[in-house]
Amino acid sequence: MFTVIMAGGSGTRFWPMSRRSKPKQFLNISGKAPLIVETCDRMKGLSRDEEIIVVLGENHLKEAKSLLKERKIHFMAEPIGRNTAPCIGLGAIFASHLGCEGPIAFLPADHFFAKPYALLEDLRRSAKIAESGVIVTLGIVPTRPETGYGYIQWKDEGPDSSKHPGHRVSAFVEKPTLEKARQYITRGDYFWNAGIFVATPQTILREIEETLPLLYRGLIQVKKVMGTEAFDKVLKEVYEELEGISFDYGVMEKTRSPVSVVPSDCGWSDVGSWQSLYEMRETDHDAEGNLTEGECLLIDCKENVVSSAGGRMVACLGLQNILVIDTRDAILIANLNNSQAVRTVTERLKKNGREDLL
Amino acid sequence: MFTVIMAGGSGTRFWPMSRRSKPKQFLNISGKAPLIVETCDRMKGLSRDEEIIVVLGENHLKEAKSLLKERKIHFMAEPIGRNTAPCIGLGAIFASHLGCEGPIAFLPADHFFAKPYALLEDLRRSAKIAESGVIVTLGIVPTRPETGYGYIQWKDEGPDSSKHPGHRVSAFVEKPTLEKARQYITRGDYFWNAGIFVATPQTILREIEETLPLLYRGLIQVKKVMGTEAFDKVLKEVYEELEGISFDYGVMEKTRSPVSVVPSDCGWSDVGSWQSLYEMRETDHDAEGNLTEGECLLIDCKENVVSSAGGRMVACLGLQNILVIDTRDAILIANLNNSQAVRTVTERLKKNGREDLL
Repeated sequence: MFTVIMAGGSGTRFWPMSRRSKPKQFLNISGKAPLIVETCDRMKGLSRDEEIIVVLGENHLKEAKSLLKERKIHFMAEPIGRNTAPCIGLGAIFASHLGCEGPIAFLPADHFFAKPYALLEDLRRSAKIAESGVIVTLGIVPTRPETGYGYIQWKDEGPDSSKHPGHRVSAFVEKPTLEKARQYITRGDYFWNAGIFVATPQTILREIEETLPLLYRGLIQVKKVMGTEAFDKVLKEVYEELEGISFDYGVMEKTRSPVSVVPSDCGWSDVGSWQSLYEMRETDHDAEGNLTEGECLLIDCKENVVSSAGGRMVACLGLQNILVIDTRDAILIANLNNSQAVRTVTERLKKNGREDLL
Repeated sequence: MFTVIMAGGSGTRFWPMSRRSKPKQFLNISGKAPLIVETCDRMKGLSRDEEIIVVLGENHLKEAKSLLKERKIHFMAEPIGRNTAPCIGLGAIFASHLGCEGPIAFLPADHFFAKPYALLEDLRRSAKIAESGVIVTLGIVPTRPETGYGYIQWKDEGPDSSKHPGHRVSAFVEKPTLEKARQYITRGDYFWNAGIFVATPQTILREIEETLPLLYRGLIQVKKVMGTEAFDKVLKEVYEELEGISFDYGVMEKTRSPVSVVPSDCGWSDVGSWQSLYEMRETDHDAEGNLTEGECLLIDCKENVVSSAGGRMVACLGLQNILVIDTRDAILIANLNNSQAVRTVTERLKKNGREDLL
């Protein structure tokens, strides 16, 4: 079974540790290995190296190849980031070019799974359904009324469900208010949308043809020259004409075809903020609930995240719930509860002409 | 009138900005100039340059001379720090050697005065009293029940007061509990002890002879060789034999001679912590009550102290009442209310063998 790993993100939520040149998927978020390496390792149970395609920005190709040099996986570099719809389309035609006709798992490079075996098992179940020609999306069983995620509503289709042993998706729902999120949890017919899909290349292309005809035509042009010298030039021309659009918004929410969802209790996290990293790494906390890395000295401190990667001694005294991220040229000190707002810092830096720090 | 500035301190309360090689008196605490420079500038109204003596550790001589190179003041280097009693004794014999017979003002190099003219006026009044052969200490009129300072109790001596227009000291009191400090304020017969004295060289030596005979004998040896080549050697030998002892504890509390106190409302602060620096520099606060220095970016922050002297961007997000001091090789992040406990950090660093950071 093929896997397409989407590694094109360039988020700034882990600034100053993440930079344009080193986005989140290249960070050692888990304390073990960079997320992209962990993602590729995790997929070993589902796909052989020759069946794994990493789609990423060409500016990150060198770094990724260096991190994954022991692996015989494929890389596909996008000349410009255009969000997930072109990325998934490109992954699909490349897999097809490599001989893939069956289901492909598409998943982001920068997520975390506490139960990787459950993920693989659920992807295998999804693949069985996807063979019938539907797109299957993984529905993460929610554990709290989270307002930072999109949701997937499903409905029982009765007899239809024998054809689709997953649930039939009835709606994709944008990030809700807290009140709505609480209702979703209580009702039980909502999952978190993790942006993880399983479908055959044919299904992907059929759905893109229906919903995003410009992208479809571009992909067909690219497919024709795959493996030839013209490839880079054509890919660049096609990408320059495309608008950035997510697969969720551009395809999944627009398609008239049925979509299936397979519930998954795989301990998923999108590790979307320092706060969520802190919670995810609970087993690495010290006795006072601090998560530390590098050369730190904490006195009378509890429940902080302190990282010293700048070669300096970071001394903390009497702190609670504070985030300290020290790097060579910038340091961030934030209330850990505000860590979702790190973006406001990078926006201000950009406005102040400090592109060198982004 | 002579002034002896005591610049031998080596406190660690402003770590990581202050280091052994650069103690508090060499820091630009006010945002205008290093404290030692401000202290020397302030005394211009009382003493000519030729009448000012800075007593300091020999390891800081070069730095001090460099900072004060425009001034024609005298420096006296101590080979080892032995607290204020030897420092005041050495200042007294050096002033005497330079021809001083009248009152000398002895004061620390690292204090702040919101009303410098009041200070000079009170020192002049003290000098008048000191001419009669008593030691006069400045009594700072307390403005709050501070538990971090020692206190001076005075009593009205009736007819004696015509002889000593200052008040007669009845007791020197160690740092009190909050309850006691509150009583002191209410009673009105207590001043803060700022460690500022006025006395003639003869009086100083007479009192040291009575209370600290070993120091007295040492000073006499040193005085004999002052201005000769033997000076450095003898000074070193004498200092090596001395115990460190404060003038307050060793002389003022022990002497049987009367001691006078002149009340002073000179806006004194010993700037003993980052918290007190923050309060002292209220006029430099921004609209949200932050005190910043260097390259900082503060978003949703109020009532913080943020200093960037390490050449890095210091970004703060959603902080309140936090201290951030960034230097080249160390950074301190502390609760501003805990800033008195910075010592615990330096103690731990010492214990961990990180002398390089002290």
